[in-house]
Amino acid sequence: MLRMSTLFLRTLREDPADAEVASHRLLVRAGYIRRAAPGIYSWLPLGLKVLAKIEAVVREEMDASGSQEVHFPALLPREPYEASGRWKDYGPNLFRLKDRKDADYLLAPTHEEMFTLLVKDLYSSYKDLPLSLYQIQTKYRDEARPRAGLIRGREFIMKDAYTFDLTDEGLAASYAIQRAAYIRIYDRLGVPYVAVSAMSGAMGGSVSEEFLCPVEVGEDTYVRSPGGYAANVEAVTTVVPPAVPFADAPAPHVEDTPGTATIDSLVALANERHPRPDRAWTAADTLKNVVLAVTEPTGERNLLVIGLPGDRDVDLKRAEAALSPAGVEPATDADFARHKGLVPGYIGPGALGPQAREVGVEAAGADAGADGDTAVRYLLDPRVVEGTRWITGANVKDKHVFDLVAGRDFSADGTIEAAEVRAGDPAPDGSGPLELARGVEIGHIFQLGTKYAKALGLGVLDENGKARVVTMGSYGLGVTRVVAVLAELNNDEIGLRWPAHVAPYHVHVVATGKEDAVYVAAEGISEALETLGIEVCYDDRRQASPGVKFKDAELIGAPFIIVVGKGLEAGTVEIRDRRAGTTDEVGVAEAVALAAERVRAALGQAAVG
Amino acid sequence: MLRMSTLFLRTLREDPADAEVASHRLLVRAGYIRRAAPGIYSWLPLGLKVLAKIEAVVREEMDASGSQEVHFPALLPREPYEASGRWKDYGPNLFRLKDRKDADYLLAPTHEEMFTLLVKDLYSSYKDLPLSLYQIQTKYRDEARPRAGLIRGREFIMKDAYTFDLTDEGLAASYAIQRAAYIRIYDRLGVPYVAVSAMSGAMGGSVSEEFLCPVEVGEDTYVRSPGGYAANVEAVTTVVPPAVPFADAPAPHVEDTPGTATIDSLVALANERHPRPDRAWTAADTLKNVVLAVTEPTGERNLLVIGLPGDRDVDLKRAEAALSPAGVEPATDADFARHKGLVPGYIGPGALGPQAREVGVEAAGADAGADGDTAVRYLLDPRVVEGTRWITGANVKDKHVFDLVAGRDFSADGTIEAAEVRAGDPAPDGSGPLELARGVEIGHIFQLGTKYAKALGLGVLDENGKARVVTMGSYGLGVTRVVAVLAELNNDEIGLRWPAHVAPYHVHVVATGKEDAVYVAAEGISEALETLGIEVCYDDRRQASPGVKFKDAELIGAPFIIVVGKGLEAGTVEIRDRRAGTTDEVGVAEAVALAAERVRAALGQAAVG
Repeated sequence: MLRMSTLFLRTLREDPADAEVASHRLLVRAGYIRRAAPGIYSWLPLGLKVLAKIEAVVREEMDASGSQEVHFPALLPREPYEASGRWKDYGPNLFRLKDRKDADYLLAPTHEEMFTLLVKDLYSSYKDLPLSLYQIQTKYRDEARPRAGLIRGREFIMKDAYTFDLTDEGLAASYAIQRAAYIRIYDRLGVPYVAVSAMSGAMGGSVSEEFLCPVEVGEDTYVRSPGGYAANVEAVTTVVPPAVPFADAPAPHVEDTPGTATIDSLVALANERHPRPDRAWTAADTLKNVVLAVTEPTGERNLLVIGLPGDRDVDLKRAEAALSPAGVEPATDADFARHKGLVPGYIGPGALGPQAREVGVEAAGADAGADGDTAVRYLLDPRVVEGTRWITGANVKDKHVFDLVAGRDFSADGTIEAAEVRAGDPAPDGSGPLELARGVEIGHIFQLGTKYAKALGLGVLDENGKARVVTMGSYGLGVTRVVAVLAELNNDEIGLRWPAHVAPYHVHVVATGKEDAVYVAAEGISEALETLGIEVCYDDRRQASPGVKFKDAELIGAPFIIVVGKGLEAGTVEIRDRRAGTTDEVGVAEAVALAAERVRAALGQAAVG
Repeated sequence: MLRMSTLFLRTLREDPADAEVASHRLLVRAGYIRRAAPGIYSWLPLGLKVLAKIEAVVREEMDASGSQEVHFPALLPREPYEASGRWKDYGPNLFRLKDRKDADYLLAPTHEEMFTLLVKDLYSSYKDLPLSLYQIQTKYRDEARPRAGLIRGREFIMKDAYTFDLTDEGLAASYAIQRAAYIRIYDRLGVPYVAVSAMSGAMGGSVSEEFLCPVEVGEDTYVRSPGGYAANVEAVTTVVPPAVPFADAPAPHVEDTPGTATIDSLVALANERHPRPDRAWTAADTLKNVVLAVTEPTGERNLLVIGLPGDRDVDLKRAEAALSPAGVEPATDADFARHKGLVPGYIGPGALGPQAREVGVEAAGADAGADGDTAVRYLLDPRVVEGTRWITGANVKDKHVFDLVAGRDFSADGTIEAAEVRAGDPAPDGSGPLELARGVEIGHIFQLGTKYAKALGLGVLDENGKARVVTMGSYGLGVTRVVAVLAELNNDEIGLRWPAHVAPYHVHVVATGKEDAVYVAAEGISEALETLGIEVCYDDRRQASPGVKFKDAELIGAPFIIVVGKGLEAGTVEIRDRRAGTTDEVGVAEAVALAAERVRAALGQAAVG
């Protein structure tokens, strides 16, 4: 039994200054966690109890799925991550350090390499497969912007699992088993989720799904359609329109367009000076060319121009996902200064991509850039199909080209999924218009394939004695993040209100007043509940006022509160249901049995919200 | 139930190349752990099961002692460690790193600072004390020489606890509670221990005990006396002999002693040229002066000379403990080259300490050192009491002084406990002659006092509203190290042989041969045992030979092995007791009940070795 008089806890009346979201605010105020450094938290007794319950569910379901638990170090040598390419690919997100002998080490963000090497170390035959291994472990990522408490931390706990198979069918089966385990885990924990198609980012691989918990404070935007399509924004593919006949299109013509460095001003001027006979020009008739700087893992930095319809912006996260493992940022003034051929507001395909390289200039009508570059790499939004006609920059200040036809007058180095996804865009599978929603990523499962096995030489002999590369799956679940989303989903204006199965304890017994009889009764009830296997925190403080005690109980958020106080003389105590908001006055004699029954009923359901 | 056909395990027939000790060798060969980097190990399924059982005992006893579990980050900012001085004091043993913003971080070796700050954060009144907190956590130390597998690692698991009290009496009481908890933990785990007085090293503080597990492979030497004194070698204090009257001692006289740079040659020459009338000179009549280089945490490096009887050597570990947090190493040739007054083999007090400073020279008969130092700091072994007479160096090559009387002819800057401790030396408490033994440190408890509370400003208000500094205790227990010593204590030439309460499982069921009936019976026995709560690993492999299966079972070392094989036709199976080395043939019908009974009996006792 916990006792408030000795429990290592101080609830705070004030919100922490850096807390933007409810879970962060309340977990700190109610004494579950405490900030040690940006994105790095200490766990206090109550927090540790919630964490342990969540870990236990994850462990049980992973074991039930046939996965075997192991535990890798967090501090790892550079070599395996060098071999996989991740030492560089991870960029500044990786905590790197040196030991006393000047050898390179890292704090592992995930353990693909180590699992691969361990299996290589021990196994060599197809008979050893399939194999599934997992660990629950502290991970490290040097996030640029740690935020929202446990939601995006730099030290956090993750369950990561890996499967090893001989064939693609085997991998698909292992993936299905893990996917089912995730669903059982979320269901048992009472965490709502959406499984969305996802890019795999720096992990490599192909089939990939994210489990997002739909909460407003989530930093991941995802899309869903009425027909059941769901994907994170990075993974949405554009529905490509059919090519347009252009045999009768007029030849392109350069026009004076003074002061039209923005799309809006360009559209206005076009409608005024060069009106279109059938309808007004809109932003969708213009081809916007956005200049980005792309930094490769090697550190090499090059400009890239993305051409897209003028009514859309580039979504940097989508661009980053498409260009991964490279990093992406908007081009700087210095970049433009170095590339004189890129005339801001008037950039057009003529200065870009293959057509520019053909004629060996960086930009039509301008000298080559200071650093001697010729053409800049040019990628198009998939909507810019053959035959589409555009108003776009002429690479000269105050001039645009009209009737520039894609495929006839210009080409690019390829296409890229970098334009923003908008509500109303069609789902790629034809299941209707997309809507946008926000969530927190609580799991990520994917079919890695042979990337790591190849890089690190994990093979086995098949039935015929032939060497085969093993194919892998990778499955991550954010354990500390689940604590945060559960707190995010289960609170109100006065505090947390945990579902019984993850609450730090089930019943908070509050004794009020000064009478010894009250404390004797409250202690007796607490002990009787503990005897029945119900977890209790008894507020035995003699000095604290009833108001303080109620506030603490409500803030901490156990699902049931028993109040022993004034009613005792009349033989009654109160049982409050923190989640339902109801209060029942019951006889002292029945209180224990009744509370135990309610706790058991609550434990029987994974209740949410 | 574990099944050998799917258990992630490959036993190795060969010892790992780097394994010097049995526990390391066998834990790797039997598939419990696997080396990831020097001093850094991965835990395989069997190892994790043993670790979990040990952690559970530690947690239960810590909880029972009234300590509350919390969990700190391993990755911590520099500031608190800067404030306590440990950022520097820890020297190269600390893993240091920088984050993406170039801020300094460390991987915590222990968490005194964080516990202190957390309590400061939450508590402010004497009413909140006493308080005891603990965590079970991964720690990091960049050991110069990681060795012996889990015994001295760089990433390891430790239980560290801290107590907080208002008074010295409170601290003593908290210390006694923790000490009792340690004893219960070791007793339950079946780990023999010796509690020895210890220096506190870089931790600061006063009362300090180490728990050593007496095993030959231990790197800690400790002493014990017939009367029950026990201490680690660093903590042994010298029994100081009484002062000697010296009124009739002759005046000191310098003699030619050519070619006597060693004690042996000096004693031989003295006996030949200057024989003592009553008895022969021995090494104990000479005063040896040993030059060390002492590096302060600030990086400042100074020479120090230790004068001690010539029949003893300086013990560098004792010197280091006495001079902590400074580092100590023998002086180098370069040191001697810079200090011309220090004539190797002929150093005497005249060139050292206060008497040399008085006359303002570095060494009598020589110029001051190249760097302009005058006298070098000089400390004496406590046996060099007033009135003792010595043959010692004259600070000139080939010359020694005879009849140099301590207190009359020379003095020093103080005494130091740096001479080696030898078997037969008297115990400081008069409990008889010391003997030397070796052990592994498995726990360290000490009364820190106010060092951290002062450095980090942890105070509370007392009954009178007066601010008081909190006094702390610190209690460490090496969890992964306990796995190692248990393995070290419980093995034989064919493998591990775990006591039941820490074995990865209780019964290893081996099915031999090709007959289906054998596998059906073995599976039935395994299932029946699991139903009774007995943990089973069933070797269900059809391809492996009986020899391979027995070797694996013996190497892995579960306490009981049931063999289902040839005897089955006659209705019998074998129950082998791995620890007792006995085999019983029992009826199939009784096997389950009998094995369960034996497991329960074995679990009832914390058996060792």
